[in-house]
Amino acid sequence: MTTLNRQIVLASRPQGEATAANFRLQEVPVPELQEGQVCVRHHYLSLDPYMRGRMNESKSYAQPQPLDEVMIGGTVGEVVASRHPKFSVGDAVVGMGGWQEYSVVDATIPGMLRKVDTRQIPISHYLGAVGMPGVTAWYGLVKIIAPQAGETVTVSAASGAVGSAYGALAKARGCRVVGIAGGAEKCDYVVRELGFDACIDYRAHADYLSLAKALKQACPNGIDGHFENVGGMVLDAVMLRTNAFARIAMCGMIAGYDGAPLPMANPALILVNRMKIEGFIVSEHMAVWPEALQELGGLVASGKLRPRETIAQGLASAPEAFLGLLKGRNFGKQLVKLI
Amino acid sequence: MTTLNRQIVLASRPQGEATAANFRLQEVPVPELQEGQVCVRHHYLSLDPYMRGRMNESKSYAQPQPLDEVMIGGTVGEVVASRHPKFSVGDAVVGMGGWQEYSVVDATIPGMLRKVDTRQIPISHYLGAVGMPGVTAWYGLVKIIAPQAGETVTVSAASGAVGSAYGALAKARGCRVVGIAGGAEKCDYVVRELGFDACIDYRAHADYLSLAKALKQACPNGIDGHFENVGGMVLDAVMLRTNAFARIAMCGMIAGYDGAPLPMANPALILVNRMKIEGFIVSEHMAVWPEALQELGGLVASGKLRPRETIAQGLASAPEAFLGLLKGRNFGKQLVKLI
Repeated sequence: MTTLNRQIVLASRPQGEATAANFRLQEVPVPELQEGQVCVRHHYLSLDPYMRGRMNESKSYAQPQPLDEVMIGGTVGEVVASRHPKFSVGDAVVGMGGWQEYSVVDATIPGMLRKVDTRQIPISHYLGAVGMPGVTAWYGLVKIIAPQAGETVTVSAASGAVGSAYGALAKARGCRVVGIAGGAEKCDYVVRELGFDACIDYRAHADYLSLAKALKQACPNGIDGHFENVGGMVLDAVMLRTNAFARIAMCGMIAGYDGAPLPMANPALILVNRMKIEGFIVSEHMAVWPEALQELGGLVASGKLRPRETIAQGLASAPEAFLGLLKGRNFGKQLVKLI
Repeated sequence: MTTLNRQIVLASRPQGEATAANFRLQEVPVPELQEGQVCVRHHYLSLDPYMRGRMNESKSYAQPQPLDEVMIGGTVGEVVASRHPKFSVGDAVVGMGGWQEYSVVDATIPGMLRKVDTRQIPISHYLGAVGMPGVTAWYGLVKIIAPQAGETVTVSAASGAVGSAYGALAKARGCRVVGIAGGAEKCDYVVRELGFDACIDYRAHADYLSLAKALKQACPNGIDGHFENVGGMVLDAVMLRTNAFARIAMCGMIAGYDGAPLPMANPALILVNRMKIEGFIVSEHMAVWPEALQELGGLVASGKLRPRETIAQGLASAPEAFLGLLKGRNFGKQLVKLI
């Protein structure tokens, strides 16, 4: 019996803002398994800002997403058929299955598929706090910012998957951690549920100078480390409040993906405050993943990190959910439930 | 007999562009020496871009220059009187004597005065290639950029004191080194005399995109490391040509000292190319000075680094020479001869 697989492919590249018309849903049969292959039925698809960069033809840190091919994306699911001795039907696995309901994976290639333990950690969290976003927060905080106890660290998009993990990791290191998020509801969640010391609603500020004033109140001892998920006004405001020898981990520039690049208002501050700014992509630092995932799994299992998820239902909802993510309409980790 | 000392003090802070009216020349007697003090007659005063930052009241990386006090500045000279056992009349010394003809130094404070050897190296070079500018180039290249042989490294203000030392240090490490300077004459000097592989005249380019095209020709394998003395258009153009994992040592933002801060056009490139940008001040890294000065002294003594100097005559010429430096009118290290 042939199983039908529904997929979403990139139909066209965005001209300016991405729209639903850039995507196309199609149905194809799941192919026969070859030796060494595993068939995974996806439970959840992860939607992440980096996908917007891949939709462009222009130079980014990765190859562009090919037209008419399944959109790239992280997935968790269960093995439904296996011709590889290390994987059995029923195994919970995480991989890069893409925007589709099933994927056929060559499990002989190391790292393509990783078994996960769902006894203490819900499977969806392996796409968030105990997955790529969590390790992203870990790498930026631990390897670039490397904070001392008592230092003040900040993060933009604080209520998101990366931001929430960052907060728990920073608190575990004895830091004062201040979030920046969009809207009073998100800020309330960041402080009450995620345990940040403070959170600032950037939408309440007309420009970066106003936002910088609010940061001064929330960070009376200045800012020693910052994790940037957004860019633009937030980064400009944070830079004004940095202490000497501050470190900035540059991970996302979501505000600049559509349209013209956003400038940095005052790069002379890099010199004035002898700052270090470092861009990184977590997939280039695979060596740290085991250590990071162990700490993150412990934080989730012990309840110190309770990440929130926004779950869209069904593959067909993925494009709209993704466009909403780019506009900050999600609350916590954005997932699509496929089952 | 009382010796008269001529001094230049900061008379007022600049409103926008600095002018000669911000300075005042005065004459005061050289005070009697106390126990432990040394009197130095200055041969040369160093003029450096950092002085412009000190003239402002606003936050910079250092205390502002106090009004009505002698302008800060590096000096070389000879000991003319000493009440400290380690210094004798006739010793050649380097220190921070300021914009004046004589200074009385408390030699009991470590690091205030350093004896130098003028047998193989002209005394003025201890304010340039074998002094603070040379060590600045060394720190940025060796400690921040840390290039591999075969990599391409660039520097703005290439014909200046920092740039010329940077070129020699980079060639000694097997790099392709490309300068950026203002005007055909300076570029010609950078290639012919300083031994750079190429030099680009930024004045021949109307915007940073045009400059970036010229950089592409001069750096066919992209840019792996950059030393920034200027900021603005040059930095924007260089960033467009950086390779993955490029390092930028941020040392000067001369173009932004007057007037409004200059933005960085496309900070998203920090992420796209996983760059590291680090600001530094060489006086905060005194531990590297001996190693750096030894290498720089060797390059000068062996003729591999032949730095050019622009020498203004007499203390009264210092303000105009300094204002010219800020506009790039000097050619190589800007000094004032005081004797």
